[in-house]
Amino acid sequence: MNIDGKAYRTIWRAEDGVQIIDQTRLPHELVIVTLRDIDDVARAIRDMQVRGAPLIGGTAAYGMAVAAAVDPSDGALAEAHEILVKTRPTAVNLAWALQEMRDRLAPLPEDSRAEVAWRHAATICDDDVVSCRSIGEYGLAVLRDIVAKKPTGEPLNILTHCNAGWLATIDWGTATAPIYAAHEAGLDVHVWVDETRPRNQGASLTAFELGQHGVPHTVIVDNVGGHLMQHGQVDAVIVGSDRTTGGGDVANKIGTYLKALAARDNGVPFYAALPSTTIDWTLSDGVAEIPIEQRDDEEVACIHGRASDGSISRVRVVPDGSPVANYAFDVTPARLVDGLITERGVCEASSVGLGVLYPERVA
Amino acid sequence: MNIDGKAYRTIWRAEDGVQIIDQTRLPHELVIVTLRDIDDVARAIRDMQVRGAPLIGGTAAYGMAVAAAVDPSDGALAEAHEILVKTRPTAVNLAWALQEMRDRLAPLPEDSRAEVAWRHAATICDDDVVSCRSIGEYGLAVLRDIVAKKPTGEPLNILTHCNAGWLATIDWGTATAPIYAAHEAGLDVHVWVDETRPRNQGASLTAFELGQHGVPHTVIVDNVGGHLMQHGQVDAVIVGSDRTTGGGDVANKIGTYLKALAARDNGVPFYAALPSTTIDWTLSDGVAEIPIEQRDDEEVACIHGRASDGSISRVRVVPDGSPVANYAFDVTPARLVDGLITERGVCEASSVGLGVLYPERVA
Repeated sequence: MNIDGKAYRTIWRAEDGVQIIDQTRLPHELVIVTLRDIDDVARAIRDMQVRGAPLIGGTAAYGMAVAAAVDPSDGALAEAHEILVKTRPTAVNLAWALQEMRDRLAPLPEDSRAEVAWRHAATICDDDVVSCRSIGEYGLAVLRDIVAKKPTGEPLNILTHCNAGWLATIDWGTATAPIYAAHEAGLDVHVWVDETRPRNQGASLTAFELGQHGVPHTVIVDNVGGHLMQHGQVDAVIVGSDRTTGGGDVANKIGTYLKALAARDNGVPFYAALPSTTIDWTLSDGVAEIPIEQRDDEEVACIHGRASDGSISRVRVVPDGSPVANYAFDVTPARLVDGLITERGVCEASSVGLGVLYPERVA
Repeated sequence: MNIDGKAYRTIWRAEDGVQIIDQTRLPHELVIVTLRDIDDVARAIRDMQVRGAPLIGGTAAYGMAVAAAVDPSDGALAEAHEILVKTRPTAVNLAWALQEMRDRLAPLPEDSRAEVAWRHAATICDDDVVSCRSIGEYGLAVLRDIVAKKPTGEPLNILTHCNAGWLATIDWGTATAPIYAAHEAGLDVHVWVDETRPRNQGASLTAFELGQHGVPHTVIVDNVGGHLMQHGQVDAVIVGSDRTTGGGDVANKIGTYLKALAARDNGVPFYAALPSTTIDWTLSDGVAEIPIEQRDDEEVACIHGRASDGSISRVRVVPDGSPVANYAFDVTPARLVDGLITERGVCEASSVGLGVLYPERVA
């Protein structure tokens, strides 16, 4: 999508490696970083210069290409896989993309692996763009149905949590794909953007990308959504997903579950938009089975932003000596999810619903 | 309660006015401010150097004393009332304390008003301390019942939102009174402290006061509580209230409603602790009838904290040009509240329940 009027993707091949937008510097600075070796790639994922399940997958795929360019041997690729798979614990796309690259490269003679790796990483990214566009089209149909039931002249108010935007994918985003599709189709769409503590991906990334692309939006703290829904100011909630079970339980950024509860309590439809690569078909009880990453205390205790002198600074908001806990995700049970918007269509959040769209996965 | 081992209240009479703890400087600096005239008092309330419904009431009462000391005429007191009543829109204690002072002073000869005003403001504050202690005792009984059902050796985990602590009252607090009572009774109590965006009163005030008084606690972002409840890590939620309807609907800091939904979804008891001065007996439908204050956008867009050089700084977290909305409170419907802990005992959150404790108010 657009930044300052120019179309971007989140990752692309460059002469001396791959280039990414350093998302830790947004929204105040647009910094392009070149990843030249496997350590650069691992660090970019671990430090969340790139984040979002699909973009992590795309970056990991390019990481295998970067590694293959240096040493295409089985041992080197196994080592690269080993390093990259440990960078983030929750995103299933990471493991998927790495395995996809290994499977593609393993049967090939060593001297052709690097070229195939570059090409296949690009294909994985292109496929993700197609998938996100498709999510956007199916989601747009859902939004048109909601608009049809509203009085004319009122904007369509969508609430989203965290950043499942194009910055979390290669382009279009997942939760934002229906929003961008609606905006481009001329619908009067307005987005409530949860700031999404502790890392503020909503305030810093979703607000940035919507603003740059010209989509009307308002930033709110994470505490506000329930109040807005009580007062009829939200027509739909659309979130992304880091991992979805075969039964439709949705692991997503911490706090998503609270919005799902508020949506249900107020009759507001709650959707998760996700590519099927995010579905972990082996899991049935998301709350019990999905491990929840705990991250550094400092993310809670200290907040980054732009100081009055323009520099990027951090300030401490928790008193010295007060302990902190930092859970990164939560799981929204399928019973609170009104629908899953996937690249193959919209379905009920259940094994039956997913089975209709993905019969080959549900035996 | 204690700060650095010394017992404090939040407001007290001094030689040249009244003194308060400037709560906008906590948790990083303990600054005592003297309020010398009505403008000082109005500013202290408006700028939230003092906050919390009971403390706002106490400060307003002292404001009338400060005004009476300068000019005890009917006109001057009417003007002081007029100035102070507009400082914050939601807190019913503010209007209550001002009316109480007016009613007490009006029949008196002018030359005795100042002295009576000082004395009566002190009485209002002392009464609040007695009320909070009483809330603590009744709440302790509730907590003992919960502990009795837990396996021995496990801590009692309480989640609270915002600061309904002693810093929000004169002493003891409302939501924290049962916690301090439990701690002093030797119960193994641990508090999950919601940071409470946008003003971070949980991270900056509740964490500060619990830490200074030696109560084990952990700071979390507002998004986390639902996840903790899903995993059995919360035994009870206790919040304060800025305004409660005669039917038991609870207006409190924005985000409270989301925690009440999560508590209900997970079978965790949800209590509001409040003095009866906080009850607005004229209201029946809190969600429809309680006006919700909207505050300055900057509270959301910028965050205050301690910079690495020790100075108190603010950083901007929202991109330039992104609109912001800042709703300060929400209303938790009575159906989600398991009980109200008041200075007269614990009751069901309903007009029937309140009628048992306050028969004189429910005709």
